[in-house]
Amino acid sequence: MSQRNGILLVVSGPSGSGKTTLCRRLADEGEARYSVSCTTRPARPGEINGRDYHFLSREEFLAKRDAGEFLESAEVHGNLYGTLKTEVIGPLGNGTDIVMDLDVQGAAQVRACTDAEIRLAAVDLFVMPRNEEELLARLSGRGTDSEEVIALRMKNALGEMSHWPEYTYRLLSGDREEDFSRFKSLVIAERMRVCRLL
Amino acid sequence: MSQRNGILLVVSGPSGSGKTTLCRRLADEGEARYSVSCTTRPARPGEINGRDYHFLSREEFLAKRDAGEFLESAEVHGNLYGTLKTEVIGPLGNGTDIVMDLDVQGAAQVRACTDAEIRLAAVDLFVMPRNEEELLARLSGRGTDSEEVIALRMKNALGEMSHWPEYTYRLLSGDREEDFSRFKSLVIAERMRVCRLL
Repeated sequence: MSQRNGILLVVSGPSGSGKTTLCRRLADEGEARYSVSCTTRPARPGEINGRDYHFLSREEFLAKRDAGEFLESAEVHGNLYGTLKTEVIGPLGNGTDIVMDLDVQGAAQVRACTDAEIRLAAVDLFVMPRNEEELLARLSGRGTDSEEVIALRMKNALGEMSHWPEYTYRLLSGDREEDFSRFKSLVIAERMRVCRLL
Repeated sequence: MSQRNGILLVVSGPSGSGKTTLCRRLADEGEARYSVSCTTRPARPGEINGRDYHFLSREEFLAKRDAGEFLESAEVHGNLYGTLKTEVIGPLGNGTDIVMDLDVQGAAQVRACTDAEIRLAAVDLFVMPRNEEELLARLSGRGTDSEEVIALRMKNALGEMSHWPEYTYRLLSGDREEDFSRFKSLVIAERMRVCRLL
């Protein structure tokens, strides 16, 4: 009955699916650690280096990326973002469960990773609304956005949602408490997975 | 968001692990169907054909077994026991979750089954006490059995327990409510598994 290896839970889903809330709450309840990403964008007021992000210069980031140190990375609006393997591999080996909120490209990079520690730990979940009406309602938000803006969000969300069959698990989101309960069930089940107990 | 395929949850564990209680409660709460086995042993008073067992003659049983109709079967104390594939495949296709309480040989037969429906549906769990002290306490029961009887039970249980690494999940049993909660988490998680949603 040896020390358990940690779970690397990768969570994706369109904007409005509630995935970020699920991940944050899991971390807030002490059930998992939220991994801290690196970024080349400047820190915003109140953001703390090492807590919100590891802030790197573009040169530092690219050097680490070229050295294969990133588990996943992406460029968004001219800024680089990524998760260092060292950020997750050590804690996983100590039995710490880690949750990551990644887009479909990031999740695909984790899935393609060949490091034994990552392959053992990683499991992925796609969170999405039950139907298009619910998605539209969530994306319409406070009703202050133009129809064009909402239509673009809807198009992007539907594009992202087409990737759900690539994941191991899918959660259809609806009621907040019910969603979190099922999300936590997934973590509890994965903690019983024999391959991480050996 | 198509009709989900059912889960075939195979549960093993030594005598005293609490596995049967877990399976029965899952069925009692309407979360899964308890599969009905066939047997060649005579019905006991109160047992109903089709509810407790499908009672078959030895000839009937062997004919079905030779025709490959059993998902798993075994001979125990001169009586044949087994689960028909038809008992599970139809309900699974309709999205019914099924729970089976099988010994390690039975679970191995399910794992070796090549039918596509079974492979998609099957997942297995080994339930065992947290440590040998707890196992001994559970096997000692009401304290009316001889040391020899208890020692034999202990030997059998430890032999069965050595098979836990062959399973997908392992549940270390302790508190009854906590055990059932984790058992149910496993079912909830498996219902979100993408391969059964496609």
